[in-house]
Amino acid sequence: MPKIAVLPGDGIGPEIMVEALKVLKVIGEQYHMLFEVNEYPVGGYAIDHFGEPLPDTTLEHCLQSDAVLLGAVGGPKWDDLPGESRPEKALLGLRKELKLFSNLRPVKVYDPLVEASTIKPEVIQGVDLLVIRELTGGIYFGERTKVMTEKGIKVSDTLTYTEEEMERIIRLGFETAMKRNKKLASVDKANILESSRVWRKIVNTMAKEYPEVEVQHVLVDNCAMQLIRNPKQFDVIVTENMFGDILSDEAAMLTGSIGMLPSASIGTEKVAMYEPIHGSAPDIAGLGIANPLATILSLAMMLKYSFHMNEAATQIEQAVDHVLQAGYRTKDLATNKIESTKLTGTKEMGDLVVQVL
Amino acid sequence: MPKIAVLPGDGIGPEIMVEALKVLKVIGEQYHMLFEVNEYPVGGYAIDHFGEPLPDTTLEHCLQSDAVLLGAVGGPKWDDLPGESRPEKALLGLRKELKLFSNLRPVKVYDPLVEASTIKPEVIQGVDLLVIRELTGGIYFGERTKVMTEKGIKVSDTLTYTEEEMERIIRLGFETAMKRNKKLASVDKANILESSRVWRKIVNTMAKEYPEVEVQHVLVDNCAMQLIRNPKQFDVIVTENMFGDILSDEAAMLTGSIGMLPSASIGTEKVAMYEPIHGSAPDIAGLGIANPLATILSLAMMLKYSFHMNEAATQIEQAVDHVLQAGYRTKDLATNKIESTKLTGTKEMGDLVVQVL
Ligand SMILES: CC(C)[C@H](C(=O)O)[C@@H](O)C(=O)O
Ligand SMILES: CC(C)[C@H](C(=O)O)[C@@H](O)C(=O)O
Repeated sequence: MPKIAVLPGDGIGPEIMVEALKVLKVIGEQYHMLFEVNEYPVGGYAIDHFGEPLPDTTLEHCLQSDAVLLGAVGGPKWDDLPGESRPEKALLGLRKELKLFSNLRPVKVYDPLVEASTIKPEVIQGVDLLVIRELTGGIYFGERTKVMTEKGIKVSDTLTYTEEEMERIIRLGFETAMKRNKKLASVDKANILESSRVWRKIVNTMAKEYPEVEVQHVLVDNCAMQLIRNPKQFDVIVTENMFGDILSDEAAMLTGSIGMLPSASIGTEKVAMYEPIHGSAPDIAGLGIANPLATILSLAMMLKYSFHMNEAATQIEQAVDHVLQAGYRTKDLATNKIESTKLTGTKEMGDLVVQVL
Repeated sequence: MPKIAVLPGDGIGPEIMVEALKVLKVIGEQYHMLFEVNEYPVGGYAIDHFGEPLPDTTLEHCLQSDAVLLGAVGGPKWDDLPGESRPEKALLGLRKELKLFSNLRPVKVYDPLVEASTIKPEVIQGVDLLVIRELTGGIYFGERTKVMTEKGIKVSDTLTYTEEEMERIIRLGFETAMKRNKKLASVDKANILESSRVWRKIVNTMAKEYPEVEVQHVLVDNCAMQLIRNPKQFDVIVTENMFGDILSDEAAMLTGSIGMLPSASIGTEKVAMYEPIHGSAPDIAGLGIANPLATILSLAMMLKYSFHMNEAATQIEQAVDHVLQAGYRTKDLATNKIESTKLTGTKEMGDLVVQVL
């Protein structure tokens, strides 16, 4: 029986998770699949109850699961804690310990939501790109130093990669491009960083194994511009950890509806992790207005990538589409421009998806 | 007599510089100022003629000048050269040798150009922000290593700052905020980087000296989103070198008219450097269609910051406004939506500004 570790986390995490689990239940019934689903504490909730953001038992259970579904972590309550004991540390710990070296973020503009963006509809209509971000290396995990000098403190963070680490994420970029539109944008800062120059060399060498893939090197600053100027030029974007952090958030915001965007973190082991890209939104937690669709779509990614239930995944995606087409919107998606909008709460939105299924 | 070193550089650099120098000449006459203006080779042009992107004589003359006006450097012709000998190296050399620790990039949306952006007019109309980027530290100038290990090459780049380096740029942020709208956004990645945590502490300590300034800490990934969601929330943004590189390009693109945006790089010594933020645009070089306004506005910044000729600077800015109001547009700014647009070449645009002056 496939094992799913559910980590609701903080803020709106628990409420949106409830809706995703309703969807999972229906899918299980329809496909005659039994999933073992267990919830574990993480983030601020875990700090409050167990004294640390990623308790050992949570980590242990995640390691023994096939997939992890995470809500969101963090909130102002824990913002003044030192780096090591903050809720976000749980994310970094899970990434490292579960060896999740890749983060996949599909950025898709839904036609009925094209008006939600601050970008003009003609620029974003039809955007369907995928950012692949390296997740367990780079400046996130390099050495840090802090020493006293005559000029005061001198502090450093190190961006470091082995060839192996770069190769596996770049390969994933090529493989994914082959399954999509055979277009790969590799983002680096090769005019400055030595690591980017090695990265670029690996891309060029590997490109020979994928002659069908059209490869483009884009400098990170230029990519930040191009995403705004003409996002449709991109299909698969592959990049290192920090650049991926910045660019995937920028790309997500293009859609104007980050409440819609799922993500998958996949690694060298069996277990993978799925989570919405939005945060814990403590300001609206408990009000019943949070958008559960990103978590539901993360569940769809889980069914596809971890359990090869492609049909079920597509079914969920289509159900979401359907509900949006029918005019239902949680508060984050509602624009007063469109008259037919039906304002919908968290639970109602989950119920609507379940109904369509 | 104030000395100006002019570095036209590559691509469209020389053509746009001609127009800026026409404007300087008129201003000199009007204000009875004599400027000593000398041109020196830089970038790809210097590589072709003198074997290096920043010849010693160019650097020497810049060091002895009051201000440097730069066109643009780089182009495909020199893209395959190794890092150390590329045209861009000249920029880094000038920044380091002239000790230009700060890069100021005003991002202003001109009303007549509000349609040029891919962002909706209501989101960007009235945007008037300033990105202050640290320019001589961080991962741009830290140690780089490349060693062989059993996992192949292991490569690293180091992001390093002294407290002193951070203090002076942050202080500039506060001082500038005091002269503008007393709002400062400090961008970092304090949830990951040790350097960002020291940075944030310095900001918080210095904030006590500027009780009138409203300070906001923004994580770099969130800033990349907020710039798209609601750029008007920002006034002065201060950040480290690499984040500034990415965010200032993103912010510039919001306007849809990077052909309009100037920059100033100011340091600890007398000499400062001014340049448009756009590149050398080799694809349109020599066609007489490049937009000279960013270079002309960079000249205006020079008059203001290096020569305290505020009135002359304002006069140039108003002349540019005037020409745009009258419907004149270079190709990069022309939208076929507006009927009254008068397509204008590089030289004609320069002439128009001179006429208004
Ligand atoms: C919370 C933070 C550490 C994290 C990151 O920077 O990776 C977040 O921004 C993300 O993108 O998942
Ligand atoms: C050309 C390059 C080295 C430079 C930089 O990264 O600083 C450029 O992008 C800039 O912003 O001036």
